Amino acid sequence: MRFFSDNAAAVCPEVMAALVEANSLDTAYDGDRWSGQLNNRFSELFGTEVSALWVSTGTAANALALAELCPPYGSIVCHRDAHIQNDECGAPEFYTHGAKLLLGEGVGAKLDPASVEALVATVRDDVHQTQPAVLSITNATEYGLVYTPEETSALGELARARGLRLHVDGARFANAVASLGCSPAELTWKAGVDALSFGFAKNGGMSAEVLVFFGGRDARATHFRRKRAGHLLSKGRYLAAQVLAMLDGDVWLRNARAANDAAARLATAAGRERLLLPVEANEIFLRATPDEAARLRAQGFDFYDWGPGEARLVTAWDSDPAAVDSLAAAIAAL
Amino acid sequence: MRFFSDNAAAVCPEVMAALVEANSLDTAYDGDRWSGQLNNRFSELFGTEVSALWVSTGTAANALALAELCPPYGSIVCHRDAHIQNDECGAPEFYTHGAKLLLGEGVGAKLDPASVEALVATVRDDVHQTQPAVLSITNATEYGLVYTPEETSALGELARARGLRLHVDGARFANAVASLGCSPAELTWKAGVDALSFGFAKNGGMSAEVLVFFGGRDARATHFRRKRAGHLLSKGRYLAAQVLAMLDGDVWLRNARAANDAAARLATAAGRERLLLPVEANEIFLRATPDEAARLRAQGFDFYDWGPGEARLVTAWDSDPAAVDSLAAAIAAL
Amino acid sequence: MRFFSDNAAAVCPEVMAALVEANSLDTAYDGDRWSGQLNNRFSELFGTEVSALWVSTGTAANALALAELCPPYGSIVCHRDAHIQNDECGAPEFYTHGAKLLLGEGVGAKLDPASVEALVATVRDDVHQTQPAVLSITNATEYGLVYTPEETSALGELARARGLRLHVDGARFANAVASLGCSPAELTWKAGVDALSFGFAKNGGMSAEVLVFFGGRDARATHFRRKRAGHLLSKGRYLAAQVLAMLDGDVWLRNARAANDAAARLATAAGRERLLLPVEANEIFLRATPDEAARLRAQGFDFYDWGPGEARLVTAWDSDPAAVDSLAAAIAAL
Amino acid sequence: MRFFSDNAAAVCPEVMAALVEANSLDTAYDGDRWSGQLNNRFSELFGTEVSALWVSTGTAANALALAELCPPYGSIVCHRDAHIQNDECGAPEFYTHGAKLLLGEGVGAKLDPASVEALVATVRDDVHQTQPAVLSITNATEYGLVYTPEETSALGELARARGLRLHVDGARFANAVASLGCSPAELTWKAGVDALSFGFAKNGGMSAEVLVFFGGRDARATHFRRKRAGHLLSKGRYLAAQVLAMLDGDVWLRNARAANDAAARLATAAGRERLLLPVEANEIFLRATPDEAARLRAQGFDFYDWGPGEARLVTAWDSDPAAVDSLAAAIAAL
Repeated sequence: MRFFSDNAAAVCPEVMAALVEANSLDTAYDGDRWSGQLNNRFSELFGTEVSALWVSTGTAANALALAELCPPYGSIVCHRDAHIQNDECGAPEFYTHGAKLLLGEGVGAKLDPASVEALVATVRDDVHQTQPAVLSITNATEYGLVYTPEETSALGELARARGLRLHVDGARFANAVASLGCSPAELTWKAGVDALSFGFAKNGGMSAEVLVFFGGRDARATHFRRKRAGHLLSKGRYLAAQVLAMLDGDVWLRNARAANDAAARLATAAGRERLLLPVEANEIFLRATPDEAARLRAQGFDFYDWGPGEARLVTAWDSDPAAVDSLAAAIAAL
Repeated sequence: MRFFSDNAAAVCPEVMAALVEANSLDTAYDGDRWSGQLNNRFSELFGTEVSALWVSTGTAANALALAELCPPYGSIVCHRDAHIQNDECGAPEFYTHGAKLLLGEGVGAKLDPASVEALVATVRDDVHQTQPAVLSITNATEYGLVYTPEETSALGELARARGLRLHVDGARFANAVASLGCSPAELTWKAGVDALSFGFAKNGGMSAEVLVFFGGRDARATHFRRKRAGHLLSKGRYLAAQVLAMLDGDVWLRNARAANDAAARLATAAGRERLLLPVEANEIFLRATPDEAARLRAQGFDFYDWGPGEARLVTAWDSDPAAVDSLAAAIAAL
Repeated sequence: MRFFSDNAAAVCPEVMAALVEANSLDTAYDGDRWSGQLNNRFSELFGTEVSALWVSTGTAANALALAELCPPYGSIVCHRDAHIQNDECGAPEFYTHGAKLLLGEGVGAKLDPASVEALVATVRDDVHQTQPAVLSITNATEYGLVYTPEETSALGELARARGLRLHVDGARFANAVASLGCSPAELTWKAGVDALSFGFAKNGGMSAEVLVFFGGRDARATHFRRKRAGHLLSKGRYLAAQVLAMLDGDVWLRNARAANDAAARLATAAGRERLLLPVEANEIFLRATPDEAARLRAQGFDFYDWGPGEARLVTAWDSDPAAVDSLAAAIAAL
Repeated sequence: MRFFSDNAAAVCPEVMAALVEANSLDTAYDGDRWSGQLNNRFSELFGTEVSALWVSTGTAANALALAELCPPYGSIVCHRDAHIQNDECGAPEFYTHGAKLLLGEGVGAKLDPASVEALVATVRDDVHQTQPAVLSITNATEYGLVYTPEETSALGELARARGLRLHVDGARFANAVASLGCSPAELTWKAGVDALSFGFAKNGGMSAEVLVFFGGRDARATHFRRKRAGHLLSKGRYLAAQVLAMLDGDVWLRNARAANDAAARLATAAGRERLLLPVEANEIFLRATPDEAARLRAQGFDFYDWGPGEARLVTAWDSDPAAVDSLAAAIAAL
């Protein structure tokens, strides 16, 4: 009964079926008939013309997006707890050729306009400092909070006013959309977002993420950067097929809702006192003494300690309902 | 009836079955039980202790290998027609942070000690020029020739004498081994090879290649570089499972033999006069007038023109025997 | 009467004389008879065998040192107010190819073992985070404090224990040595320092800094990196001559003492209450209301505001004694 | 009697005087009154509005220019014998973050439209190859030939037609202008040049080169890149002063003429048979047997062997007329 990461989840049946179905000879790289549908399918989903490229990891999607939006001598505003800062071993620095990350504050890994303003205000407008070029937020955040369309728009307006591009690390974008019940458009281009790393791997995919550019942005440079980074798979059709299978019939939303619902059940069981943060997507941060954590583990539940007296639980599209119920009961019984 | 690239081939049944079998919850990244077997399994295969890392593309494998072996201020000796020079959009330069490629000559994209010596001799031993640090060869070459163990050893000795590391781009390493009937060891560490990009994708895999380091080389830096390049897949088990499935029962050799055999049949049909180069692996380069090429295409055969009056045919593990026979007949009838 | 930066100071007579004297035909780059003396002269100065390379700027010296000591996938521990973080437009990131800076705390831009330990402890020992490889301190600091030999040794020991290399940004190293009355050795290799950016430009030079490696470290890679960065001047003898002229007769110490003495006179005049920090080298940070600052400026004194109600004064080797006396009087009269 | 490099020459009196004159306190970096004149003075010289930045070396000027004009995933067309390929230890690759150099052919290191066309035609227009973005020529070339305004214009037109930017490595631009008797404008923006590395160091300066951008190109990015590369000297006024002193009264032209005249005298003495190439600037390439070279050296003349039976002689602004006469006589007497 594993609740330590949605990365550990299995691949959903639609994706597996799509891989089997795609298993025939076709054109290499992204010249195949699956890859050729991405721009259109994502343009439909977002209700505007977009450029969409598959890649194998969220780190690659983020780093390619940042390389497109930030020059080597620029900087990227993000939260101190952002994945791009803490969990990508410097991929943004590698792909941007040495841009700096400026680290902001905010509860639950969430930035707000005031914290961004405060951070940008520390930068002298001279040649001795890298100038902020991008604002990058994660939705849902690394702590399972979501940015609403209004919150995103407020950051989008600030970004425009400050000459920043806006990037969303959407490793759990599906969970955010499912949680908010809004449209993908409202959380992206309508709110001023320039680029989205749209995650599929944590949400039932095998190895596919999609980098989406809005606003008519030319993805030409990114096609070269993707190839040059070794991310243009020779049999790209197997990536595209995963993604298309998750767009069909909104499997991506169905999976995200399942994960969110499981998390909500755990949150209810935990109760307000025990939660470190509201549960808005598929991550639960609990107050739990070492003894309590040990008791949960003794019942077969796997999860990460997140700090002294804190535990992180992550649900996934395939979290076993019985296991969720057991865990909910176990938490309630602590 | 497609003969334009082994990249276009399907995934072999064992790999597809392995993906289905691996489709359960496990540890993320490379902490799973499949990934954990790679070092041992490849050490067995090569008969020496190696470090083995999965990546998604041959370009990534090559570039990571070169980054390990060559400093930014060094240079890499390779053939003028090498994949790393012509088909990776500067991935070696990106990963090495700007090393230079020194381009050598030789028939069929093959280097020999004399051509390497000649090239290295052009470099002044001073700080104004990047100093050669790596020799990279492709086996089988981009033109379907193979380096024998003896030829590889001769280059390995030269490399040692000149202070160069030796890298093998083995996108079609399986085809070379199958063609030569030698052991993987004889074409690598026994011949002085430091690193091998061992290709699986062209040979029946879906998206897996393996980077192998010999000589007790510590792969620690490469683990960091892989992550930083966005190539540490969150569900890495699906890569490892592909590879293990192809090692089991020597599927990798069986597939390569099938491709080589198909190529041999075409070569025989073509006859010596029509062949631009000997056919030693799974690529055939033909003399074919525009009219002849058109005639083949009119019969439903797909392939690349390779220059004026030249055509490239590539067979794969799944080349349809009937299609091969038809093509053989069609070539013979030209 | 300018007190805003020692960068604005003139070139001292010995340096100017040396430039005139060096003005004859000689070998290019660093093959000349001045450059050829650097290793020996700095080895004498430090009482141990060192490698010493001239460069034109402190930023280049720092960035080259860090590129030698830190891999692209590593990180550099420094103070939040370090020059390498705030005033070099990402030069460390450029030269290291994307290493990260980890920012520590401490009064007056000074790190101590506890703050370094606290920072290093935040890093997970896994492949998802860049691992600390270097500790970089500035002596004298950006706020005019000095690290004593004991303090440096304590950091050196910590660095060794944690597998970090120790770099000193010595843009004002001369001021630190002059202030402490210790030997250059005590502040460097005897305290565990691996590399020193030894500043001459702020201290009476025109355009020369020296990068010194200790511990028998091979500077070969740095010679290539320097060339590749465009920092191997074709007439390098004019850089070497500046440096040698400042070593002769300890001009470097004489100049630093003059600057420190001027600062001390201003500090005394200011009195303890008005000083934000002790004055240990050639920088004075004052509490000064906008009105007070305006009054000083009205008397012809130039300096930087450093924050609300704060002013920075910097003395130099050539601070005019009369101007210093006037300023001292003016401060005392506030 | 040294004729091995103009890099070895002394600094001309006007430059030395300017350094002495500039030796007073002023604003740091490029905020001083000398640096502030560069844009205007070079705009006057070229008869159009330009951006002009000082740097310390030709390598830095070239690499910064190329980084401005070429993306990391692009390539730079240049001659096989270009300085940027052979003598900068990969600086273009470092500053551009890994662009490739495409090497063309032509007598005396000179490219012509046909050779450039031939080279560009080898590049496939797909994402697997870096796409040509810049054409870089050296005027005068590494072999002492000059491009006329007409020849430059022809390349400029080709560049525009092919979507390439045009860069001129003008380490010996003054020698080219002096040789041709044309205006600086005719060899640059009027011929379609986007950026010029304008050399002063080989021509009597101490350590100054100027990077000039034409066509209203915004140099903002280059200012950041220069700082980030450690090339923004803290006392930049001493660089600017060198340059201004050489613009005043056309010292740059006077010096170049002196060097060219000396070379012409040697060329006349050598006679057509002995010259490998026409002498159009300040470099002479001679046929000379080892015995002949030894005889010249025995008479006290220093120069480089350039290949079997070949010698390179370089004159400079300060080539001693008596030494030139002696060498001329010695060559004639061979």
